[in-house]
Amino acid sequence: VGLIGGSFALALKQNGCVQEIIGMGRSPEPLKQAQALGVIDTIAQDWAHALHQTDLVLIAAPVAQTGPLLQAMAPHLSPHTLITDAGSTKSDVVAAFYAHLPQHLAQIVPAHPIAGAEKSGVSAAQATLYQGKKVILTPLPESSPGAIQTVQAAWAACGADIHTMPPNEHDAVFAAVSHLPHLAAYALVHDLAKRPNAEQLFRYAASGFRDFTRIAGSHPEMWRDICLANRSALLTELTACIQELQQLQTHLTQNDAPAIEAIFDYAQRARNAWGSQQS
Amino acid sequence: VGLIGGSFALALKQNGCVQEIIGMGRSPEPLKQAQALGVIDTIAQDWAHALHQTDLVLIAAPVAQTGPLLQAMAPHLSPHTLITDAGSTKSDVVAAFYAHLPQHLAQIVPAHPIAGAEKSGVSAAQATLYQGKKVILTPLPESSPGAIQTVQAAWAACGADIHTMPPNEHDAVFAAVSHLPHLAAYALVHDLAKRPNAEQLFRYAASGFRDFTRIAGSHPEMWRDICLANRSALLTELTACIQELQQLQTHLTQNDAPAIEAIFDYAQRARNAWGSQQS
Repeated sequence: VGLIGGSFALALKQNGCVQEIIGMGRSPEPLKQAQALGVIDTIAQDWAHALHQTDLVLIAAPVAQTGPLLQAMAPHLSPHTLITDAGSTKSDVVAAFYAHLPQHLAQIVPAHPIAGAEKSGVSAAQATLYQGKKVILTPLPESSPGAIQTVQAAWAACGADIHTMPPNEHDAVFAAVSHLPHLAAYALVHDLAKRPNAEQLFRYAASGFRDFTRIAGSHPEMWRDICLANRSALLTELTACIQELQQLQTHLTQNDAPAIEAIFDYAQRARNAWGSQQS
Repeated sequence: VGLIGGSFALALKQNGCVQEIIGMGRSPEPLKQAQALGVIDTIAQDWAHALHQTDLVLIAAPVAQTGPLLQAMAPHLSPHTLITDAGSTKSDVVAAFYAHLPQHLAQIVPAHPIAGAEKSGVSAAQATLYQGKKVILTPLPESSPGAIQTVQAAWAACGADIHTMPPNEHDAVFAAVSHLPHLAAYALVHDLAKRPNAEQLFRYAASGFRDFTRIAGSHPEMWRDICLANRSALLTELTACIQELQQLQTHLTQNDAPAIEAIFDYAQRARNAWGSQQS
């Protein structure tokens, strides 16, 4: 029950889609806060309570916790409870579903909402978080049409724009446009921060640096887990990125102005074409 | 007479520091526009006109043009005209001063205003552009104390926060905090944009990607010149960046969660400490 789960709850409540929201979590304080804020109605004492006559479960935990969570849920899960999740990686989450809930695959529709996580915690939750944002569904071959329809309707009720793709395709796309940029931003800041003259360097860093490195302010544990969960696709992207930088290194060493300008120009056109399509 | 030169002119005018602003440029249209906007008072017909009884020259052109510009100015430059510039690199600009104006070194005080260039052109010029922004002066050993004092006063009158350092130190610092991030942003966008599934990738790019790649929308020709002008320091940074990425590649290949988290954590703390100091 943090930003992601809390915002899902608030959106469904606001749209009259739900009767009761039950919160479940590792520590009691955020749950009390969520209840005080009206994000959840009830705090579950344990999984038996949390899953009793529950229609839909959203798993909104760091992806590395998915396996243990499913293991704990398994004994208490009825065939009538649908499950979706909000994990930033999908192949590993899907593998965890197959490993721990093999009897429940028809009830499961994995998802990844593409919604900002700059702030975190239930106090940042808002009913409008998913408004106009993309949510990627990666249904299993075993997911029942009814389950897909209901999970899709729940995310759509949050105002999300629903997309569907296979888990491996999802992971390849997000390794490229999200996971690698995070890794690179962390790497660049780490490289500067560890130097003896780090203070001087940061003193002269300006708005370009600010925006380029903003994502290096993201939660280290969460991103460690995402990078490891999507290791294979991320390594492919990391290798491509290093090769691209090595190519620029060669052009720079050779003073090859046209080659450098061609790369910058291609990138600038693509970036500006993309930027002008964004709201 | 674009964003940088125009804003300098407007700030000095607004503070009553100047009697007449003369604009000089390659093409007539921006000069006419600058005159219509009241940014400049007079359009110079040639260098003899531009430099006649002029107290202070600001060279605000792409750094690669500095040499040819100085060569053209040299025959018309009196010993009473001070010169500053706004180049993003300093060692190459200083070398151009030594090469083309060896008789005028006492009059020269190179500078680099750290002011955003997201918009460009004289229509974007504003008197407040340098307000609270850093301007780095890299005086020559030959710069006269009076020249340093006047140039410093001019930038200070624009509201800038004046810093002084040697040109090579300037170039090392900005290779790290500005030039490398630009190069990396261009590289990442180019790597994605050239792929057959580029359209799909960009479709799912979100706010992290938007900020990380914003500087890839910068002017390709200008950044080609900056990268080549600061080639040596930039190659040092590029090598360090590739090494840092290769280290993460190793950690990822070895599934070394603590090593990855340590890098992310170090970077996140440094980035957030820096971010909290920014206005």
